Amino acid sequence: MSLLIIGSIAFDTIETPVDKVEDTLGGSATYICLAAGYFSKQNYLVGVVGDDFNNEHITMLEKHNTDLQGLQIVKGGKTFRWGGRYHENFNDRDTLFTELNVFETFNPIIPDNLRKTEFVLLGNIDPPLQMNVLNQIEKPKFIFCDTMNLWIDIRKNELLEVIKKIDMLVINDSESKMISNEKNIFKAAEYIQKIGPKYLIIKKGEHGALFFHSNKIFTIPAYPLKKIADPTGAGDSFLGGLAGYIAKTDDISFENIKKGIVYGTCLASFCVEHFSTKGLENLSMEEINNRYYEMKELTEF
Amino acid sequence: MSLLIIGSIAFDTIETPVDKVEDTLGGSATYICLAAGYFSKQNYLVGVVGDDFNNEHITMLEKHNTDLQGLQIVKGGKTFRWGGRYHENFNDRDTLFTELNVFETFNPIIPDNLRKTEFVLLGNIDPPLQMNVLNQIEKPKFIFCDTMNLWIDIRKNELLEVIKKIDMLVINDSESKMISNEKNIFKAAEYIQKIGPKYLIIKKGEHGALFFHSNKIFTIPAYPLKKIADPTGAGDSFLGGLAGYIAKTDDISFENIKKGIVYGTCLASFCVEHFSTKGLENLSMEEINNRYYEMKELTEF
Repeated sequence: MSLLIIGSIAFDTIETPVDKVEDTLGGSATYICLAAGYFSKQNYLVGVVGDDFNNEHITMLEKHNTDLQGLQIVKGGKTFRWGGRYHENFNDRDTLFTELNVFETFNPIIPDNLRKTEFVLLGNIDPPLQMNVLNQIEKPKFIFCDTMNLWIDIRKNELLEVIKKIDMLVINDSESKMISNEKNIFKAAEYIQKIGPKYLIIKKGEHGALFFHSNKIFTIPAYPLKKIADPTGAGDSFLGGLAGYIAKTDDISFENIKKGIVYGTCLASFCVEHFSTKGLENLSMEEINNRYYEMKELTEF
Repeated sequence: MSLLIIGSIAFDTIETPVDKVEDTLGGSATYICLAAGYFSKQNYLVGVVGDDFNNEHITMLEKHNTDLQGLQIVKGGKTFRWGGRYHENFNDRDTLFTELNVFETFNPIIPDNLRKTEFVLLGNIDPPLQMNVLNQIEKPKFIFCDTMNLWIDIRKNELLEVIKKIDMLVINDSESKMISNEKNIFKAAEYIQKIGPKYLIIKKGEHGALFFHSNKIFTIPAYPLKKIADPTGAGDSFLGGLAGYIAKTDDISFENIKKGIVYGTCLASFCVEHFSTKGLENLSMEEINNRYYEMKELTEF
């Protein structure tokens, strides 16, 4: 089955306790596409870049099963840029600058032939734009949705409208507490499930993730890593791996989504081992599957 | 097989966001004995109390398979008292007072007939006292050992000497980082394993625990709870459940220890649902096993 991915494409300047890189490929949709491409083979990216987005980037994405017919390239425009510095714990970060550039006036247009795509992934963008996408698509089988603390702060009502219409919400633990005003993560999950999404994933960074569906819960730890280079894109790689696996297998049962979550966890671990998208660019399915089976050994009793 | 447990016995005054209790039964060894008693039937407690420790407490411990021949009751003395207040997150806490009382001059004496006990658990007490116990016992099959940040701060050398002689060290994540001076938990584990203990457990509170043995790792989440009353004794209940299960099954294989860790996780969850030791006093094996199987469903994929 095919997967429609809407999100940001960016050039990042990143500083971590390990190193610093400038103007390197980033953006939520980029990580999602790269991770998903290891599973589903028809992934359609809808996003916007300037003409500083060059052929090398296009070739790399296409090589990873990303179809770019929905990519808007603004002539004379500059691609979205973000700069951030991670603290010693690799968890907290300060945003150093945000240059929206062509992203400021981004209006996602879903090409006619893609409006019936079976699986849709709304990456972390302004909720009215996510709603705009929802209004253009026709009866998808399953909609994944991400968001961030900023939108919970300044677009809560619009975000809640989106959340009511999607199938799976994927957020982190602090976001779940912000949405619900609950301090306990399981009470937060209960609150959010009542709003609408039948499937909820709460990510806890180095502590793994929780998956909620009706009255069932599944937990997964993060893959154990002694060294991290750059946490940027970990959540997007997780989501991309998960959505790609679900789109490939075309099976939205609880049991199969659990497997997708494990694959997502593996892709996130490969992502953070290197800067930018480097950790996702040259993986083999054997490497990915080995890590999947390590996750099994890590959790089985 | 039988289990020798050395640790503190206390009366606690505890304030949590939920409620407050005064002079209620506590202490590391108390929680350990109660949790272990659901599994191993011959648990010998070595500790000290004043004569304010009454028959009701003795009867309750004995009912939970705790043999008290090693308990020193100091006539005219007062039992150790501790007071603490938990923050809104149920994680951080402030110590309000510590009255060592009879614990100040505690000198653990292992009765002759208990020196060959197969399983030994050194609860969290001053490392020289733990070493004192090690010098009195004869070739136990397996030694569990707990400690705390205070001893890492002020008795690091003595603690390291103890750690070299035990089989399993059970500590929390911040303690693992203190001992190793590493920020990454897996590097911290690697460092500690090199010091000596063949088995290492790092507890992460609400995020579960990690178990390390040679090059193998096992992860377990905490049992999902929407309500917590009092976190006091969670770590001790975990350790008691684990050690009791290992002593009962007399099997120190990696696979069996994993099962013990799951049982420990279940006992910790029952503990924190009520104040003081109340959550551990009236459990059935059916309740415990139900939670064990819930843990399986929670983690299996």
